[in-house]
Amino acid sequence: MLARSVLVTGSNRGLGLELVKQLSASKDPPEFIIATCRTPDKAEELKNISTEHRNVHITQLDVSNESSYGGLVSHVQELVGCQGLNLLINNAGYSPKSTRINMVKWQQMSDTLLINTIAPVMLTKALLPLLSTAASDSALDTLSVKRAAIINMSSILGSIGANEQGGLYPYRASKAALNAVTKSLSLDLRRHNILVTSIHPGWVQTDMGGKNAPLTPEVSISEMIKTLYALSEKHNGGFFQYDGEALQW
Amino acid sequence: MLARSVLVTGSNRGLGLELVKQLSASKDPPEFIIATCRTPDKAEELKNISTEHRNVHITQLDVSNESSYGGLVSHVQELVGCQGLNLLINNAGYSPKSTRINMVKWQQMSDTLLINTIAPVMLTKALLPLLSTAASDSALDTLSVKRAAIINMSSILGSIGANEQGGLYPYRASKAALNAVTKSLSLDLRRHNILVTSIHPGWVQTDMGGKNAPLTPEVSISEMIKTLYALSEKHNGGFFQYDGEALQW
Repeated sequence: MLARSVLVTGSNRGLGLELVKQLSASKDPPEFIIATCRTPDKAEELKNISTEHRNVHITQLDVSNESSYGGLVSHVQELVGCQGLNLLINNAGYSPKSTRINMVKWQQMSDTLLINTIAPVMLTKALLPLLSTAASDSALDTLSVKRAAIINMSSILGSIGANEQGGLYPYRASKAALNAVTKSLSLDLRRHNILVTSIHPGWVQTDMGGKNAPLTPEVSISEMIKTLYALSEKHNGGFFQYDGEALQW
Repeated sequence: MLARSVLVTGSNRGLGLELVKQLSASKDPPEFIIATCRTPDKAEELKNISTEHRNVHITQLDVSNESSYGGLVSHVQELVGCQGLNLLINNAGYSPKSTRINMVKWQQMSDTLLINTIAPVMLTKALLPLLSTAASDSALDTLSVKRAAIINMSSILGSIGANEQGGLYPYRASKAALNAVTKSLSLDLRRHNILVTSIHPGWVQTDMGGKNAPLTPEVSISEMIKTLYALSEKHNGGFFQYDGEALQW
């Protein structure tokens, strides 16, 4: 089992949906897969998965609306009970189309930073008591996804060192900022035995990645799940590709 | 001469004020030092400098208010004329007091990202035509502060690799994001012959750095000005300390 309980944001499509699909279909699935999305009514594929798999709990959440976090936390608490939440996957993300400096707009910058950087920080803060509860189970490996972890869905586009193409100001800035958050979280939460890493899913055929991407969501996520299983102390505070390869900041 | 024309944001105090002070007092000062701040009426020290040095032009600018950028650009254009603006120093910054994850607030995150990340991007975009005009002077070194450059005042706290203390989510995220912006700008503007770097001023005795900081503003800025003189092609898109030492992302 990857972990007893997993929460995935932005799970109505793309990589989030594929994560819920593969986790629920695994041989030894999590007891609780909390799949959040903005508009559950329209999440047809997710509803189909949830009908087939009773451990998939579709939960409404707009990550940009902090006032709804309290309700989410109560709901997760009721589901997972006194064992807490093991794994938070901050997957919900936004990518505007802007490219070069002469095209970038203020609103794009602020919307993108809000969804990709601020929301993961604040949602982590809100769910921290439930993650800490899970982490207090000392029977499990010191640092592992099974015990307690926060996975921030980042991107190679957030790697400053690997940037050779320029442009993409809102997205690159937001993911570099998210990586900075990952690093600080990994240091702050180490003593609580909560693992934190940034993961780059690869360039994937999703609405965000487009049709020309070399990877299917199936391959990206199946490799990523293997990587999640293998995460340990030495990965804490790091930045890894879906297949486990370390990336530069 | 460091450059014919220099614009420094946030120049009413701290490092911005010290920059204006040392540039105006130098042996071969810039012809135009455009010193922006939110409330010129209250900028007593800056007004004193401007009274002594006719090349110091105090200009009102709240970097968080994009609608005022047009007026600023016209004003700068009038001052510098057909030779354009050589050097933009995005110095204005904000640092909230928050530390650990359980104390961070949404508003702190968004205010800090707005001032430290979004404003430098959007102000650069607004001033780009004037920078490009300056850069078109092919008599000068290919890439140099004298020809045309954007210096983003960053911080070692924005270095993800050097973070060993954790916390400081708003500030660290905003400066890592600013470093990502520096890298993209350096690639996008290379063909326009505009140099772009991030500079860490050191830990300085300012309102932001506090009294326990090891460096005085005088030393930080005098070393930084030497470093600015030395910037060339090989520094483009990099991250340097005030004394020229390269820093990791």
